Amino acid sequence: MPAKLKTAVVGATGYSGLELTRILLRHPHVETPLLLSRQSEGSVPVNLADLFPVLSGNGRYPLLPLSWTNLKEQGVQLLFLATPHEASRSLVPEAVAHGLRVIDLSGAWRLREAAHRAVYGFKDEGSATAAEFTEKAVYGLPELHGDCILGATVVANPGCYATSVILGLAPLVKAGMIDRQHGIVADSKSGVSGAGKEPTARTHFVSVADNLSAYAVFGHRHTGEILEQLRLAPEELIFTPHLLPIPRGILSTIYVHLKRETETAEVESCFRQFYAGKRWVRIFAPPRLPEIQFSVNTNFCDIGFGLAKDGHRLVVVSCLDNLLKGAAGQAVQNMNLMYGWKEEEGLQ
Amino acid sequence: MPAKLKTAVVGATGYSGLELTRILLRHPHVETPLLLSRQSEGSVPVNLADLFPVLSGNGRYPLLPLSWTNLKEQGVQLLFLATPHEASRSLVPEAVAHGLRVIDLSGAWRLREAAHRAVYGFKDEGSATAAEFTEKAVYGLPELHGDCILGATVVANPGCYATSVILGLAPLVKAGMIDRQHGIVADSKSGVSGAGKEPTARTHFVSVADNLSAYAVFGHRHTGEILEQLRLAPEELIFTPHLLPIPRGILSTIYVHLKRETETAEVESCFRQFYAGKRWVRIFAPPRLPEIQFSVNTNFCDIGFGLAKDGHRLVVVSCLDNLLKGAAGQAVQNMNLMYGWKEEEGLQ
Amino acid sequence: MPAKLKTAVVGATGYSGLELTRILLRHPHVETPLLLSRQSEGSVPVNLADLFPVLSGNGRYPLLPLSWTNLKEQGVQLLFLATPHEASRSLVPEAVAHGLRVIDLSGAWRLREAAHRAVYGFKDEGSATAAEFTEKAVYGLPELHGDCILGATVVANPGCYATSVILGLAPLVKAGMIDRQHGIVADSKSGVSGAGKEPTARTHFVSVADNLSAYAVFGHRHTGEILEQLRLAPEELIFTPHLLPIPRGILSTIYVHLKRETETAEVESCFRQFYAGKRWVRIFAPPRLPEIQFSVNTNFCDIGFGLAKDGHRLVVVSCLDNLLKGAAGQAVQNMNLMYGWKEEEGLQ
Amino acid sequence: MPAKLKTAVVGATGYSGLELTRILLRHPHVETPLLLSRQSEGSVPVNLADLFPVLSGNGRYPLLPLSWTNLKEQGVQLLFLATPHEASRSLVPEAVAHGLRVIDLSGAWRLREAAHRAVYGFKDEGSATAAEFTEKAVYGLPELHGDCILGATVVANPGCYATSVILGLAPLVKAGMIDRQHGIVADSKSGVSGAGKEPTARTHFVSVADNLSAYAVFGHRHTGEILEQLRLAPEELIFTPHLLPIPRGILSTIYVHLKRETETAEVESCFRQFYAGKRWVRIFAPPRLPEIQFSVNTNFCDIGFGLAKDGHRLVVVSCLDNLLKGAAGQAVQNMNLMYGWKEEEGLQ
Repeated sequence: MPAKLKTAVVGATGYSGLELTRILLRHPHVETPLLLSRQSEGSVPVNLADLFPVLSGNGRYPLLPLSWTNLKEQGVQLLFLATPHEASRSLVPEAVAHGLRVIDLSGAWRLREAAHRAVYGFKDEGSATAAEFTEKAVYGLPELHGDCILGATVVANPGCYATSVILGLAPLVKAGMIDRQHGIVADSKSGVSGAGKEPTARTHFVSVADNLSAYAVFGHRHTGEILEQLRLAPEELIFTPHLLPIPRGILSTIYVHLKRETETAEVESCFRQFYAGKRWVRIFAPPRLPEIQFSVNTNFCDIGFGLAKDGHRLVVVSCLDNLLKGAAGQAVQNMNLMYGWKEEEGLQ
Repeated sequence: MPAKLKTAVVGATGYSGLELTRILLRHPHVETPLLLSRQSEGSVPVNLADLFPVLSGNGRYPLLPLSWTNLKEQGVQLLFLATPHEASRSLVPEAVAHGLRVIDLSGAWRLREAAHRAVYGFKDEGSATAAEFTEKAVYGLPELHGDCILGATVVANPGCYATSVILGLAPLVKAGMIDRQHGIVADSKSGVSGAGKEPTARTHFVSVADNLSAYAVFGHRHTGEILEQLRLAPEELIFTPHLLPIPRGILSTIYVHLKRETETAEVESCFRQFYAGKRWVRIFAPPRLPEIQFSVNTNFCDIGFGLAKDGHRLVVVSCLDNLLKGAAGQAVQNMNLMYGWKEEEGLQ
Repeated sequence: MPAKLKTAVVGATGYSGLELTRILLRHPHVETPLLLSRQSEGSVPVNLADLFPVLSGNGRYPLLPLSWTNLKEQGVQLLFLATPHEASRSLVPEAVAHGLRVIDLSGAWRLREAAHRAVYGFKDEGSATAAEFTEKAVYGLPELHGDCILGATVVANPGCYATSVILGLAPLVKAGMIDRQHGIVADSKSGVSGAGKEPTARTHFVSVADNLSAYAVFGHRHTGEILEQLRLAPEELIFTPHLLPIPRGILSTIYVHLKRETETAEVESCFRQFYAGKRWVRIFAPPRLPEIQFSVNTNFCDIGFGLAKDGHRLVVVSCLDNLLKGAAGQAVQNMNLMYGWKEEEGLQ
Repeated sequence: MPAKLKTAVVGATGYSGLELTRILLRHPHVETPLLLSRQSEGSVPVNLADLFPVLSGNGRYPLLPLSWTNLKEQGVQLLFLATPHEASRSLVPEAVAHGLRVIDLSGAWRLREAAHRAVYGFKDEGSATAAEFTEKAVYGLPELHGDCILGATVVANPGCYATSVILGLAPLVKAGMIDRQHGIVADSKSGVSGAGKEPTARTHFVSVADNLSAYAVFGHRHTGEILEQLRLAPEELIFTPHLLPIPRGILSTIYVHLKRETETAEVESCFRQFYAGKRWVRIFAPPRLPEIQFSVNTNFCDIGFGLAKDGHRLVVVSCLDNLLKGAAGQAVQNMNLMYGWKEEEGLQ
């Protein structure tokens, strides 16, 4: 029996980091992960189970200060970063310099094109390191880039919205079925955990409950990922996120116009063939459609659709759990690919 | 001081009927309405406050059996129908035959074109009465048809989704600003009261909570209203409704492509001019957008938008309370117009 | 027609202050209130409708800096304080010194006994002013102290939890029916608006949704109000508040043991007699019980009960809207009493 | 490696049955369970994944008609009944007659005393079979009756409310610490899945959302279980259930008066000692208290408390997931005990 992989997680106190930790704790090929905090240096170790009582009753989970020396001594091989993108921007190169492989859950290294990165305002833009790691990082969407992930040193784990929209569109785009001149609309709705754990006026219960709001119209950071991965021009897509009064889950309703008159069976076949053998995508046959509830607490991205009688107008519905397939689950799926394990290990 | 108007409500036990009754009870120009039930004939009068304890403490609201004789003896002049469309299909002609004016909240008489009515499957389709009342009924959207409503005998009160989409699009369509060949997308999300009071698997709390689902893709009944009112061809529009885990409120996100490069101020001006003097539409200046919470418990339809830098791609957000501006509130607004009162009477 | 009352509100940007402002704006005997902010001195006037878009479309509501000189010049007679208790502790004496009557929505002046005030840690405790205003302030529960409110200079508007528990118990306590040695339990559950508008980890949507939590066990500030108003000894009561995943509303389940075997009719009669002629209390006859939904958006406190077959064990259920009968609505009810108006003016 | 256990589930289409099925599917010592329906006789096998899309993507789960012959041929050893109590009342004896061991999730065989069973109105009351199985059935609360469960033929799986209240009280009752003359109050709040999957006016989303209601005051079926297990007289307890606007989870707030003045450490010690070695109970040290969120999606019952300064008045808070520790999880915990496996198998 081979030794288990030694991993560490930076940022386990956020929603994605907690979810990631919970998965790693039960993963058969992974040792109990080191939990690291950028804030805890010098302070007494905090027990993660004190911050998240849901973890209690199963032992202690001390949060240690992040230290490259300590990571080396402990023999850590793979580092997960569930940190803000500014932090990941510097931590990723440092980790690689210390011989680690990295899966970064932030948006720091997902984008190839400077125009798409502008919305992040990275301070190191234009440096040699930035160029090197932009090149080195693999966009960690296993259904599209499974081959590259196996040998990757740095995996840039995709955004939650981006995952749901890209997976809903990729088969049609790759098959050249979409009339891009008509434009593509992705209307996405997300639960509040996607907005992060920071208490703000926007995440106050009274602001969210009994409400729905659109935000970041023509300005959301995930737009660039969708454009790059699907090789779309900016004017070919409108992506609008909305904040739903639910804790977790994303539903994207995607509108496209097909070039030629198409039958329902043909569309279904396009999706089924593209995702044949892909463990974490489920295709729904019309008239059944995915709902957020079906995918929450799973690592599935669920995809369904409805086609107009004219055979041109197509509505695709794509659902996933923003903390799993949209973040921590996908990160573990990427780890499984990086180490040659079955794609579902630890995720069932 | 002129005598108050005598009204009656059929269907006060549904969500819209209850809301309508509550407004009429405090309307300054209306007497306490007669509350009528199609089911209660022969039975002892039921007190509406027993069905809806929220009404209690303010007197009794007996539900009487519907009887044309009784309506006549009581001197009722205006009849509100908060009934299923099949029922309204026969009740409207009967009421008119008995000399009443009618505001019908159902979909029975909203549509001019047989193709659009097909989804309802009306049994009297093709009859002389059907033809007569299709002609006679005025589509009760005050912001578009205020002039016709004054003299109307039969007002077909618009659907909730239709109201939100039509009001969000009408200024742009009428100004000829939209490139229709690109297609228009209306992605609408509604609270559960829009699905009616009938307990079903779909309205069970556990099915709705923490969830979002699309439904009736390419098949929702309100599609025809949008097409007719905006004079769109079916292939120019995709309308998709979704069920939100909230009790009430609708948000429609509407996507259009403008013919020529346009500035934000021009779009805002288009909306403001079209709705100048309209009491129940509020325009939000970018970057502020309407949210469902802002319009719930009011009769407002709130409209905002975001324009892409290219000056072509436009997102319009339209919000309203499906039981007020989307049903009962709009019905009272129509009554106000029919009797020459101020549009806001009873609705503030 | 007599001149309308001139009022001002300090703290209109909080949940209670906003609710209060909305009621005053439609109150028939009150002029448009001055809206004052302790923070806005020197800054450009803010429009309350910009902070709360639900208000927009009906005019502007400028927030002015609080200035006694300005209040005098404007002829303000009655001041509402929707301020934190520390602020009210000094603002109330100042306002009275400037000749104003005051209704204070905070806990600053509700408590007579120093032991009950200890939980607040007032800094002026022991001063002559503190003693004077402790004496001067009338506890503004109209159903108990209606007579004193008419002539009051300072009304201390009751706490939301306290209102629901006191009104549920007062008839039984005053009638001497309760066996106090058994102890009284008040298990209260409140919506999140009761926790205030400040964004905290506790009010984050993800912390509240799908959850219920007890808090402040044996330490909530409203306990003293209940004890004082019902003249109970601390050991005779346990009051436990809980945070509900809803925006507004309180339900208190109150458990008592009756001294002698009693019939249901007798309990109902006790409640009905005590609240005879009280406009804003509704008694529910068993087996019907109040629910939060029935009282939300009204100024009612709803009371119902269930009696065990033994005729001793009694469960009382008391519901109200924490922002209306539990705060702003009760404040207006107190104003109505102070000025000799009908108790329901502006509240229907 | 020993052969895996062959099990079957009747009633997998309900909330508890689905949850149970999901656990059994991943249990290491159990074969894929047979899924049986009382309704499906003669019809084509239904796939459970079609009813619950959350199950899809992992294979087919055909629902077969219940047939004793078939169960025998398939070698089924243990039968789970997630059926209504009327059905379980006859199915349990039949199953035992066919040589099966049974875990019944209904209330059919939980109660020893006829007085407590009266609320169920069992038709076979008084029969020899009824007497035999009342004697034979073991009340399946592992923390209290672990020894008896090992050899049990019939396990009556406890009610969800009962589990939360009994586990919160048992240590104190067994230690004789409670002054019963003061009476015990258990104020319980449950998510809507506890009310079952049947769509009713009461489970309609609009009835539950933004609401809280007490129900079955002095008449809930779980009262008898609490009384029997804790050997309390009816007049010593008031148990009141409430319906929370959340899908799952129970929080019980329990009020007792301690006989003698006690310190916090002593109470904590009483709980810790009683539950020492019990895998699925977590004790929270004051001032930390359990919340519903902490236990949902786990098999834990979480217990915390607050003690008044007088050392007598004690509030115990007990939380669990009504579908896991309150139903399916506890059923699997019972199975683990019946077959001598570790208590946490399949439940982590």
